[in-house]
Amino acid sequence: MTSPDAGAREVSERPVDGLRDLLEVLDLENLDAGLFRSTAAGEPGHRLFGGQVAAQALVAAERSIGDDGATAHSLHAYFLRPGDTGKHVVFQVDPLQDGRTFRRRRVTAIQDGRPILCLEASFTTDRAAAEYQVAMPPVPDPESCPSMVWRYRATGLRPDQPFDLRAATTSGDAAPHFSDDLWFRTRGRWDGRLVSPSAVLTYVSDLTFVSVILRPRGRPEVSRLTSLDHVMWFHNEVRLDDWLLFAKSTPATGTVRGLALGSIFHRDGTLIATVMQEGLMHSNRALAVTPGRGAPAAAPPR
Amino acid sequence: MTSPDAGAREVSERPVDGLRDLLEVLDLENLDAGLFRSTAAGEPGHRLFGGQVAAQALVAAERSIGDDGATAHSLHAYFLRPGDTGKHVVFQVDPLQDGRTFRRRRVTAIQDGRPILCLEASFTTDRAAAEYQVAMPPVPDPESCPSMVWRYRATGLRPDQPFDLRAATTSGDAAPHFSDDLWFRTRGRWDGRLVSPSAVLTYVSDLTFVSVILRPRGRPEVSRLTSLDHVMWFHNEVRLDDWLLFAKSTPATGTVRGLALGSIFHRDGTLIATVMQEGLMHSNRALAVTPGRGAPAAAPPR
Repeated sequence: MTSPDAGAREVSERPVDGLRDLLEVLDLENLDAGLFRSTAAGEPGHRLFGGQVAAQALVAAERSIGDDGATAHSLHAYFLRPGDTGKHVVFQVDPLQDGRTFRRRRVTAIQDGRPILCLEASFTTDRAAAEYQVAMPPVPDPESCPSMVWRYRATGLRPDQPFDLRAATTSGDAAPHFSDDLWFRTRGRWDGRLVSPSAVLTYVSDLTFVSVILRPRGRPEVSRLTSLDHVMWFHNEVRLDDWLLFAKSTPATGTVRGLALGSIFHRDGTLIATVMQEGLMHSNRALAVTPGRGAPAAAPPR
Repeated sequence: MTSPDAGAREVSERPVDGLRDLLEVLDLENLDAGLFRSTAAGEPGHRLFGGQVAAQALVAAERSIGDDGATAHSLHAYFLRPGDTGKHVVFQVDPLQDGRTFRRRRVTAIQDGRPILCLEASFTTDRAAAEYQVAMPPVPDPESCPSMVWRYRATGLRPDQPFDLRAATTSGDAAPHFSDDLWFRTRGRWDGRLVSPSAVLTYVSDLTFVSVILRPRGRPEVSRLTSLDHVMWFHNEVRLDDWLLFAKSTPATGTVRGLALGSIFHRDGTLIATVMQEGLMHSNRALAVTPGRGAPAAAPPR
């Protein structure tokens, strides 16, 4: 979406405001009560990024809640089928529960009449903060880590446009890996009117996350990683005003499936969210994980 | 259910086979395709144990899968409303996906026409084991830990009948707490025909689990703990043939909500499952956590 009075050249030369573009992607059209639709934002025939569909499903749930200040404290999602970047997605919201302090929504993301993702989210009006939390791991400052160029050739997805992404590597001058912990910061002005910061965090929390299940095995020959599910708990207010650290580990992993455990910290050390995701490994050919080329997109299983 | 030729006295004097009784509780009547019903097993007016409803929902999902050897590798559940021990629960199964290697089911547990729990589960035919896993923490052998007497006075629930439960405490002669790690072993003969071992593990993984969110604060004045959700990943074959250790920690907790992270190990050190649950604290009066009396049952929020 370009501003009406901007010519093509002016648009192409404007400073990149990737965050604004991302917010427009996550924004949904309200078709009817509990029924929303995304805009088809890419070329047809490519896999939709799972974090995008999960974030949009959260947006749909949020909009069915109304505007009384209730925010998500958790969400559970399964990736069911690959989505197509060239088609819109419909989000159907089922109001599971409207209690005194908690509200629960079930969202089904549908494309071509078939569910591609199911998500349940729980909302609360309480603003309780976590007093005890795990500590942020010692990593280099984001300023001392190089920015990652990150583009999915197949789909044109450019995660490095809405976010400045940096491998929080302690390995000195070694090349960063996608299984490294990740610093990220939004690029461009934050405008909270369209989409919640929780939805932005949901989007980014599916980036590189699942690759941590390869970490204990070094760099094994895995052609593609598939995200099976995505589960988040929000412990403190989601603030996108500074660098955030996405620290990753794996409680259990093998040659077929592995579980990723993520902790997202504000730069000041506050734990914002805990993220869990199970991943599936496909082993036909070697995995390209060199920065600048991009890892294969995590996508749902068939 | 008593055997037809057993008199009342003989039944009351038979050795306790709590596991068999539990399997009968978890067993469901098949009403129609994708529609199941539990038996009302208690006095009316008391809160149903959440782990029981979650385990029954998993059983409903399993039975809709058929008998080709697919087992659950994960489940996500939200507790929506308190259930009543005196009424049956209906389980509605929605076949979200039937793929080549993965099958997903969405289950809604309904009582009096209202959903009390929603659960999604993912099944796979692959028997892949985790090769890398977190290590079992050092705790005393179960033989050196005393058995817990455990009865919920309000509801009559006796978790110590299907399971021998022992606080895996390293605090020497101090009284065990419900926030301690837990050894457990099934009592009685295992009969895999009625109910899967995964369902039994789901049941037991909601016992005492959420109390770990109180651990960083010592023993605060919390009257009741409410389980908000329940999420599990199964990493290796679920075997109930020996002692299992339920090790617990909390990544983040406060005065209102906290997140519990559990790891269930076979005695031989194999990680069987990772369990996550968010809990809600109610702070009206002091929490009774002395063994032999029983902690208040974790129950869904209103």
